[in-house]
Amino acid sequence: MSDTVQTAVVGVTGYAGAELARLLLRHPRLKGKPPVFAGRVDERDAARGGVPLAEIHPELVDSTGHGLLKQEPFSWDLLASRGVEVLFLATPHEQSREWVPEALRRGLRIIDLSGAWRLTEAANRAVYAFEDADAELAAATQLQAVYGMPELHRARIAAARLVANPGCYATSVILALKPLVAAGLVDLSQGIVADAKSGVSGAGKSPTAKTHYMYAADNLSAYGAFTHRHTGELLEQIGLGANEITFTPHLLPIPRGILSTVYVRFHEPQTREGVAKIYHKFFQGSPMVRFYDKSLPQIQHVARTCYADLGFQLSPDGRRAVIVSCLDNLLKGASGQAVQNLNVIFGWGESEGLE
Amino acid sequence: MSDTVQTAVVGVTGYAGAELARLLLRHPRLKGKPPVFAGRVDERDAARGGVPLAEIHPELVDSTGHGLLKQEPFSWDLLASRGVEVLFLATPHEQSREWVPEALRRGLRIIDLSGAWRLTEAANRAVYAFEDADAELAAATQLQAVYGMPELHRARIAAARLVANPGCYATSVILALKPLVAAGLVDLSQGIVADAKSGVSGAGKSPTAKTHYMYAADNLSAYGAFTHRHTGELLEQIGLGANEITFTPHLLPIPRGILSTVYVRFHEPQTREGVAKIYHKFFQGSPMVRFYDKSLPQIQHVARTCYADLGFQLSPDGRRAVIVSCLDNLLKGASGQAVQNLNVIFGWGESEGLE
Amino acid sequence: MSDTVQTAVVGVTGYAGAELARLLLRHPRLKGKPPVFAGRVDERDAARGGVPLAEIHPELVDSTGHGLLKQEPFSWDLLASRGVEVLFLATPHEQSREWVPEALRRGLRIIDLSGAWRLTEAANRAVYAFEDADAELAAATQLQAVYGMPELHRARIAAARLVANPGCYATSVILALKPLVAAGLVDLSQGIVADAKSGVSGAGKSPTAKTHYMYAADNLSAYGAFTHRHTGELLEQIGLGANEITFTPHLLPIPRGILSTVYVRFHEPQTREGVAKIYHKFFQGSPMVRFYDKSLPQIQHVARTCYADLGFQLSPDGRRAVIVSCLDNLLKGASGQAVQNLNVIFGWGESEGLE
Amino acid sequence: MSDTVQTAVVGVTGYAGAELARLLLRHPRLKGKPPVFAGRVDERDAARGGVPLAEIHPELVDSTGHGLLKQEPFSWDLLASRGVEVLFLATPHEQSREWVPEALRRGLRIIDLSGAWRLTEAANRAVYAFEDADAELAAATQLQAVYGMPELHRARIAAARLVANPGCYATSVILALKPLVAAGLVDLSQGIVADAKSGVSGAGKSPTAKTHYMYAADNLSAYGAFTHRHTGELLEQIGLGANEITFTPHLLPIPRGILSTVYVRFHEPQTREGVAKIYHKFFQGSPMVRFYDKSLPQIQHVARTCYADLGFQLSPDGRRAVIVSCLDNLLKGASGQAVQNLNVIFGWGESEGLE
Repeated sequence: MSDTVQTAVVGVTGYAGAELARLLLRHPRLKGKPPVFAGRVDERDAARGGVPLAEIHPELVDSTGHGLLKQEPFSWDLLASRGVEVLFLATPHEQSREWVPEALRRGLRIIDLSGAWRLTEAANRAVYAFEDADAELAAATQLQAVYGMPELHRARIAAARLVANPGCYATSVILALKPLVAAGLVDLSQGIVADAKSGVSGAGKSPTAKTHYMYAADNLSAYGAFTHRHTGELLEQIGLGANEITFTPHLLPIPRGILSTVYVRFHEPQTREGVAKIYHKFFQGSPMVRFYDKSLPQIQHVARTCYADLGFQLSPDGRRAVIVSCLDNLLKGASGQAVQNLNVIFGWGESEGLE
Repeated sequence: MSDTVQTAVVGVTGYAGAELARLLLRHPRLKGKPPVFAGRVDERDAARGGVPLAEIHPELVDSTGHGLLKQEPFSWDLLASRGVEVLFLATPHEQSREWVPEALRRGLRIIDLSGAWRLTEAANRAVYAFEDADAELAAATQLQAVYGMPELHRARIAAARLVANPGCYATSVILALKPLVAAGLVDLSQGIVADAKSGVSGAGKSPTAKTHYMYAADNLSAYGAFTHRHTGELLEQIGLGANEITFTPHLLPIPRGILSTVYVRFHEPQTREGVAKIYHKFFQGSPMVRFYDKSLPQIQHVARTCYADLGFQLSPDGRRAVIVSCLDNLLKGASGQAVQNLNVIFGWGESEGLE
Repeated sequence: MSDTVQTAVVGVTGYAGAELARLLLRHPRLKGKPPVFAGRVDERDAARGGVPLAEIHPELVDSTGHGLLKQEPFSWDLLASRGVEVLFLATPHEQSREWVPEALRRGLRIIDLSGAWRLTEAANRAVYAFEDADAELAAATQLQAVYGMPELHRARIAAARLVANPGCYATSVILALKPLVAAGLVDLSQGIVADAKSGVSGAGKSPTAKTHYMYAADNLSAYGAFTHRHTGELLEQIGLGANEITFTPHLLPIPRGILSTVYVRFHEPQTREGVAKIYHKFFQGSPMVRFYDKSLPQIQHVARTCYADLGFQLSPDGRRAVIVSCLDNLLKGASGQAVQNLNVIFGWGESEGLE
Repeated sequence: MSDTVQTAVVGVTGYAGAELARLLLRHPRLKGKPPVFAGRVDERDAARGGVPLAEIHPELVDSTGHGLLKQEPFSWDLLASRGVEVLFLATPHEQSREWVPEALRRGLRIIDLSGAWRLTEAANRAVYAFEDADAELAAATQLQAVYGMPELHRARIAAARLVANPGCYATSVILALKPLVAAGLVDLSQGIVADAKSGVSGAGKSPTAKTHYMYAADNLSAYGAFTHRHTGELLEQIGLGANEITFTPHLLPIPRGILSTVYVRFHEPQTREGVAKIYHKFFQGSPMVRFYDKSLPQIQHVARTCYADLGFQLSPDGRRAVIVSCLDNLLKGASGQAVQNLNVIFGWGESEGLE
């Protein structure tokens, strides 16, 4: 495929958008081809051609002049006039749900970071309460969507027009469980537990009572037990029944990073070597997953990287395992995975621009 | 019983010792009767009668003059000469294991904050690798020990000569599970999961690689899966087989507080009201446990208090529950519970000096 | 004077209000006489007699039943019917400016935690841009206000009807400087520098971009150089000209606490003993100030206490000093000082209920 | 000059060493030419050829195989056999003091990150208490050392055999002050104040009481007033007398970053534009300094970057300024500046590999 491509990003103002901008601006295949940044821009700013990145994310300013790039007023014409081929949406779910059909109609490839198109089953999607103006079109669009986790769907992503980039918690838990469940080791009748903890950037940039420093700091809180929106992704991607996994997210007093502690019980006693072998085989050829043979991963080693780190501990009798899965929620849990999908689509090295 | 008592504290230099000092110094029954602080004191300090609390814990200095109290060189004679009746040991496990028999011989009541005497079963105790000089004496002493959790053993504590104050993690998990397991609701064959997270003070005051700010801050790490020393307390106090619970502790980037997320599966579907009723009944008359009817507890509401907070969420089908249990590891998880035991022993209000 | 008093608190929902509630509820002189909590309450809550403290500040719930107390809909009649004599206002500046004249008319004593009445000079007050409906009444009221720092104005506070409780930063800097400036040591022509750092609770409870965890954590930022509203308090209380002090506040990534580093140059070389003597003398009889003879104070030793801690370092030639002043911005910097003022007014021990 | 070079790093195990490794491994001029890592290695590890970077810094592991590189047992022969031309020393001061003369003798260029060779004046160096085995050789070596701040000494660095990489605090304060002092604006007789705050990584990797999480977190402490070792660098590089600046460092509860707030008084009133112009001119052609025209810099925007950020605020009368200077203590304050010096020496783009 082609050696480079013109991208566009909608939603650069948020945390994931900032990381996406950073990754795309320094991607070796996109040198001299910065993304078009587009979004809602007020009148005064529109008059000056948009808002300079330097004002949105001062940390993007460097001697290369990237800070001078602007978030311009979004329009389909803008994208067309710039020759955009790939559109990244770091937008609210509802907006992605609305825009994607039109983007497909205009021949764009889309990598959508929202939850809009991740779920195949209507029952699982209910939690989002989408109100599709054209239900038929939405259904047809949904059929085109590929769940954007290269470790599971590399070939389908390469051919996809619409990539539904996975949720951060979901990525972390699916990577931990899929290899063992797919290998038939896990006794699903006994129930899996996924206890996940995320840094505050996962809660978004809007100031709320829960993102106030005084609430988050020196604290830990559980939320969304049995109800979190990422649950559907776990069920569909791992292949589980609704009662076969209990997933509880927690809000950690750190800026970024997710650690999921996943508990499984096996049909038969396992050895450490046997379980490790399954992971090694599953992630062979997957450069963004690092498997720890001797210790358990920690958030400090994945924060600000695009990797997912995995490790596990076996019970003395070999019948239970605790799997620890870590990633940066804004990178492998969002923008890093989005760029990984870009690499897959264009047949570039899967880890290009991600290390 | 008597209206006041002379106490002594060994180990005031550590984090739990500091909290113990603070609680005893302001306890309404001990007004004008400060504890005797005793411990290892070097020669130079011994010459000036010990080390002023003001130098050990500047935060204890106030206008009452408590900062002038000293940690004096420990000797049994010192305790005797001061008329000490109750001895708090905030000492390493090995030291408690060695000193307690002698303390009992001298007629002292002991509240031991270490892990030395908590475990009845030799198999569970193996993890400590105690080397008792006199195995027979140790065994006889062990028989006198009462596990110091008033919510479970109030009557026995009142009569005890030796109270083995529970571990911080153990307190948190036992309070969450005991009511439901005792009521026969929990299907033990499916396995319980206790995912616990603790602040850094739980790792002790010695500077180590793991307590370095750069290791702990902005991080989360799991440790001791299947091997943590508090596991034995869970098995004995809740009444579980070794394979019926999986317990994984984590190191949180906060100074103090534990949150345990506990996962159970029930024999039969339950209602929210039914489960709540069991907790309410179990903790009736237990002032240091606060049960949340409408939300889940968080660390911020227990930090620096002597309470344990409990709440739970039920799965839609009523067959699973996530129980959240919070406490301050240095208070209800250590020194607060120690003083609660003192109150129980002397028949004082169980929450006196703890609010 | 009387042995107890009926108080009321307006503004219990904020951080300072919560601390004020906590202090008053456990004050030994106010046992069995909890404050009346009054404020804006919506209709639905008014119908149930107000909002239980347990819902506003879960951490105030304990076995004494304090959590059952309610914030009731404010009215002057409510205060009258409950026999309120002392009114604490933890309200926005504008509201205090409006309410205080009426409260005085009704014979209440007021301890106002806002900035409404702290400044005598109109020029210094300009920064607040008060719009007084009745300028004459405001001027007359201002004349009655006493700046509520007992270490400076103990006698006048005892007799005051209106106590203007000092700003947190101002308290910290004034305590550091007043003794040395009053003693005539400081060369004002060379300019004093006060570099102050405060925890996030100082920025208030409303979620804003600056109180978002992602902004405050792992960060430090300066703000308000040459323009901060507490500057006027420094000038008036220390007795400085506008160009004689440069004050710069910073936002620290901690929940609470202020540390001010204050730099002075002396007319003549000083000795450590000489300077220390001035501080000792100035704060003799001031139980809420702790002076460090051998080291510099730190935030960790004042956080959650009502003390202000002071220490200093002299340059080798004795001509310059760095003074470090620490306090908890919500306690000695707000509610602790407010209760200290209550103690002074009623002739109780100045530190009662504050240790 | 040449297009690439073989480097070596002694001291990769520390924080600055880790950053240095990261920068050199991804430097565009050093592709395929990883540094030789050398240091003290115990016997068992020597037997396996050294310690893999993956074990020292797990975060350096990526799909490029860098984690497989080893820290090998140091010897001069090792460096020679690998054709090392440039030696980075991230070693204790004493070790640098001892090794540098020998390294120079062997024809190596040295970039020394320690404090060993930064100070020209013996009086300023006294604080290090070096015990040079050969005082004459040390003196001769000292004469060859160039203070490694390209913004001040670009030309001399380009020609230097021994670059003394500046201290982190010193870099931050010198960049803020040098332009204004050099322009003759600052009234030195009135005294400059530099109030600096650093994250915990500045205190090194060894676990100590002060780097314990419980000490550093939720705290702020001042230390080293009038005595800090970086003071000499300020005096020599800015050109100040010992009494003309008061420098106080503080320990911030964050992992990395320094913010210095610097206070000056001018001979004559200045305008904002005039002062800004001086900074712009001074840093023209200095890509690693970012000057803020409209706001004050913050730590969050320099952390994990190689930039130093500068901004200032003028007093209303134009006679005083508060200058805020931020950088990452491990990057522009250490390893970033070291690589910047490498770029200068070889005539490469000064910001190559640093963005």
